[in-house]
Amino acid sequence: MKYDLEHEDLISIIKSADENELEELCSDIREFLIQKVSKTGGHLASNLGVVELTVAMHKVYNSPVDKIIYDVGHQTYVHKILTGRADQFDKLRKFKGLSGFPKAYESVHDAYDTGHSSTSLGAAAGYAVARNLKGEESEVVALIGDGAMTGGLVYEALNNIGSNRLKIRIILNDNGMSIAHNVGAMSKHLQRLRSSSNYINAKKSVRSSLNRVPLIGKPISNGISRTKSRIKLSVLDQRGILFEELGIKYIGPIDGYDIPKLIEAFNAANAVEGPTIVHVITTKGKGYSWSEKFPRKFHGVGPFSIDDGNLLSSNNSSSEVSFSEVFGNKLLELAKEDDRIVAITAAMGTATGLGPFCDELPNRFFDVGIAEQHAVLFAAGLAKAGMIPVAPIYSSFLQRAYDQIIEDVCIQNQHVIFGVDRAGLVGADGETHHGVFDLSYLSSIPNMTVFAPADGAQLEEMLEYAVKNMKSPVAIRYPRGSSKFDHLKLKAFTGNNIKLSDGADITIFAVGNMLDTALEAAQELMSKGYDVGVTNVCVVSPFEEDLTKIDTNLVITIEDNIVRGGFGEIFATRATETGNDYGLITFGVPDKFIEQGSIEQLRIECRMTANDIVKGATEYFERKA
Amino acid sequence: MKYDLEHEDLISIIKSADENELEELCSDIREFLIQKVSKTGGHLASNLGVVELTVAMHKVYNSPVDKIIYDVGHQTYVHKILTGRADQFDKLRKFKGLSGFPKAYESVHDAYDTGHSSTSLGAAAGYAVARNLKGEESEVVALIGDGAMTGGLVYEALNNIGSNRLKIRIILNDNGMSIAHNVGAMSKHLQRLRSSSNYINAKKSVRSSLNRVPLIGKPISNGISRTKSRIKLSVLDQRGILFEELGIKYIGPIDGYDIPKLIEAFNAANAVEGPTIVHVITTKGKGYSWSEKFPRKFHGVGPFSIDDGNLLSSNNSSSEVSFSEVFGNKLLELAKEDDRIVAITAAMGTATGLGPFCDELPNRFFDVGIAEQHAVLFAAGLAKAGMIPVAPIYSSFLQRAYDQIIEDVCIQNQHVIFGVDRAGLVGADGETHHGVFDLSYLSSIPNMTVFAPADGAQLEEMLEYAVKNMKSPVAIRYPRGSSKFDHLKLKAFTGNNIKLSDGADITIFAVGNMLDTALEAAQELMSKGYDVGVTNVCVVSPFEEDLTKIDTNLVITIEDNIVRGGFGEIFATRATETGNDYGLITFGVPDKFIEQGSIEQLRIECRMTANDIVKGATEYFERKA
Repeated sequence: MKYDLEHEDLISIIKSADENELEELCSDIREFLIQKVSKTGGHLASNLGVVELTVAMHKVYNSPVDKIIYDVGHQTYVHKILTGRADQFDKLRKFKGLSGFPKAYESVHDAYDTGHSSTSLGAAAGYAVARNLKGEESEVVALIGDGAMTGGLVYEALNNIGSNRLKIRIILNDNGMSIAHNVGAMSKHLQRLRSSSNYINAKKSVRSSLNRVPLIGKPISNGISRTKSRIKLSVLDQRGILFEELGIKYIGPIDGYDIPKLIEAFNAANAVEGPTIVHVITTKGKGYSWSEKFPRKFHGVGPFSIDDGNLLSSNNSSSEVSFSEVFGNKLLELAKEDDRIVAITAAMGTATGLGPFCDELPNRFFDVGIAEQHAVLFAAGLAKAGMIPVAPIYSSFLQRAYDQIIEDVCIQNQHVIFGVDRAGLVGADGETHHGVFDLSYLSSIPNMTVFAPADGAQLEEMLEYAVKNMKSPVAIRYPRGSSKFDHLKLKAFTGNNIKLSDGADITIFAVGNMLDTALEAAQELMSKGYDVGVTNVCVVSPFEEDLTKIDTNLVITIEDNIVRGGFGEIFATRATETGNDYGLITFGVPDKFIEQGSIEQLRIECRMTANDIVKGATEYFERKA
Repeated sequence: MKYDLEHEDLISIIKSADENELEELCSDIREFLIQKVSKTGGHLASNLGVVELTVAMHKVYNSPVDKIIYDVGHQTYVHKILTGRADQFDKLRKFKGLSGFPKAYESVHDAYDTGHSSTSLGAAAGYAVARNLKGEESEVVALIGDGAMTGGLVYEALNNIGSNRLKIRIILNDNGMSIAHNVGAMSKHLQRLRSSSNYINAKKSVRSSLNRVPLIGKPISNGISRTKSRIKLSVLDQRGILFEELGIKYIGPIDGYDIPKLIEAFNAANAVEGPTIVHVITTKGKGYSWSEKFPRKFHGVGPFSIDDGNLLSSNNSSSEVSFSEVFGNKLLELAKEDDRIVAITAAMGTATGLGPFCDELPNRFFDVGIAEQHAVLFAAGLAKAGMIPVAPIYSSFLQRAYDQIIEDVCIQNQHVIFGVDRAGLVGADGETHHGVFDLSYLSSIPNMTVFAPADGAQLEEMLEYAVKNMKSPVAIRYPRGSSKFDHLKLKAFTGNNIKLSDGADITIFAVGNMLDTALEAAQELMSKGYDVGVTNVCVVSPFEEDLTKIDTNLVITIEDNIVRGGFGEIFATRATETGNDYGLITFGVPDKFIEQGSIEQLRIECRMTANDIVKGATEYFERKA
């Protein structure tokens, strides 16, 4: 390597570097990324795609005076390397290590923390208005992918930005696929731009290509000249007409690996008084043969062998089936029997186990883009028309559709089935992705039934029960990762909670996948001489009133959800109201945002382990004694 | 009147009526609406605007085979008259009476229940896909206002509709103002369409005006002809280019009071194989001089005098200041002292009391349209850049921004202040508008502080406290209507709950505006010989641990929120966990959706009155005795 990425001031180097030096730097960064992520795992493909783009941004813009806001944020590895964090990549996405997303607590160069999609333009609008009100001079830059352009938040922000002519530099990183394949009319619009227009190439300068419209380098002073330019542009070609109609100057498309052209385009954008969008064409996984060939696999990847791109087998996960796969496969089986079933995904088809469904029943599979609100609304419309829509959505992303769940699904009491995937602590993605609110926000909605399976076998039973035995809204929440298929040998699920055993001293109510932990704790407590009962709380809502009618000294509840508003609280309330007299300890995620780390590490941090239960119970009886 | 609206089969009449008869029918309907709504109150202006439009829709479309979906839904009065519900207008928006919104339980002609904005296109997409999968032939029609077009849900639906070429008939009811004034780039786009294009008038048939593009009457068979037609259209004029770029055929603008032209336009739309949008220009309040002159006042209006348009004074509300006004006025006062304060509204500036702020500090006032998600995201960006954004949003509408509250405001622990307006039961708007979830969904988010004032004076103190004494997210939730300003003479608010008195027998914890009810119950209980204490729970979250440390026999909690996940549950849990031994009764909204009615009627239904508290307490002691 020419550059010592971990010790040199890379921003200063970029500012003075010539074209060849910048290319060498990019080459070094790419090699560094492949080396590091092959060991830690992480979002490799999207970062390899934006090496040159990120370097060009830092050449033109002066962070942190200029604000660079990354949409979603898993494409910030290059940015983190450039802003002095290369030395932390050995702990990328590890407990107490470098985050895979922008974090203001890591660096002043991370202007805005993201994680969920389509927020960069709205946040940039806030920054731009603040800058204007304070009379400051700086650029606000938003880097957004084509996938994120499918979210309604983007449109709402464009409405604000375009009509108020907020000086924001939107950089559209268009790799034509997002996480999987892009969908939607906006995506087709971008595709037309990519294919119908020629790249602004080396022989044609950005400035000269823009000179056909009199917009560069001077403010648009009145409506007349603006109308003229718009008409002129549209007569010449349709390039960017959709953005132009919303009041945003379009520049592009630009080759994302042509650094001088990128720099030229950003400078051209900066000369425009109002908002601009520079449309950059990139390739996901660029520069590493295996990630270019399999960009989906290398989107979020575990440790792998650089030579052949094969994943390094981890201890236990490779042979086991994930909850997502169980859900998707069972749904396909059910859908073959009942043609009212349709599957809906918000850009996460493969990740939520719907791959086989999509392959076998493509006309009943709908990917609506990164648009959870629409996914749920669309499902409500389908249900109203007599179909049985099933939508597996990550727990934290489903937060986006909270209002539609209430208004469109539950008030109308519609038979929509939600797979609440990645519920509970999710691990390396951290604060923004833990699915620890769903038991609280779903259980408080009337008409909603909430199931939580303890293992894959129970998930299968629940999905079948939800399809065949119910006519109202159902949410089935299950965690990320291995379904530990069928290992618990539970009694058949018939729509009720399952009592495994009674306990005169202690009764543990274990919600969903915490049953394992509860059984481990029960065993330990029994070895200490306590009489312990365990109940598999697989029906979280509506609350089963009979649960509180038990003869025990201490009740323990444990759930992979924030305690506030969760199962423990409803249990405590009903128990108290019905005059039951036993002690209570609620275990679950505490009232704070939980960082990244392995599930094991995070459960220790949240006091959610079998040891914590044993300790809590023994201390309780010591106090009582 | 020519027609007996309450007894004749108006749909049959429409099907056979000629142009003159349709106009007479419209005239009768308009008179009926003014008469009825002048007595009951209701959404008058928007319904007067769509009389001809609704009649024309029912002339062309065959409900309920064809599905007519109304966005928001407060413009369905004409539709309700036409579909056999004219005789119920004396109980419009009353307890057990006719809803002001579409309700499937009222009529098969109400294809989809709405209340919140921007959902019609997404629901229509669901209906259209179901129709296609079942191989049925019918039209799916969505009537949407220009204001609703500012919501991101619309864009997400257009992405789905346009790319899948779903045969949906979008009718854009464009009155150029929505509830107040429209904002945003889409709104400006529509404005250009209205002003730059000539109406398709009597001399120019809809069909001939469309004949310039070869799209009518035959399917678009391949990409080439489609591209051609698009280019041809854009060369001729820019009409509807934004929709056309998203794959939706644009027809219009059409005069919303020219019935033959409306019918012609709908028929022209029906001849197109793919999705269409008919752009209809209407006038809010049309045909009644006072509502044409003051369309905002007559948007949602109380009983009024037809002669002079003046409101009939109700018993107590006219002279009192509303919570919204208190909030808006205090905010203006604070903003004059601190130029970091900015106000944000999602199309509800006047309704949330921001009128004076907008007038006096227009450069720090931002109306982002019906886009609550963006409102909160924009606020997060502003806060990150050092401003103090304050956003009063109706409780039930804030549900839309749940994910942004978590991800953008609370994870980043930003100083954003929410006014949660219309919290609790709201009355006549019913199921879709009650703000009864906010204590549950806001209290479970880490870093969020939730205040609930008992009266207007406390609201003022809280807002000042939130601006001056806090640096983290704050939500202040207050009800619709009169602030009963200063009547409780509470101790000054200093960030803590306020104990009014101790009670050895009973302690009542009254959340926010339920203090009145609690005091009334306490008085009654004391007259029965009980020793009763009352605490003003004005800080709902974080939970004040000391609250449970009381020496009392019975604790009663009461809140104008669903019990599930509310204050009562956290109290019960903490009390049980800390080993306190008293009885508990939680009062609040039960686990079901609450209908429309007066606040008094609904509180009786929800068992939330002083009588209910007295009854609950006395029964408790009788059982104990």
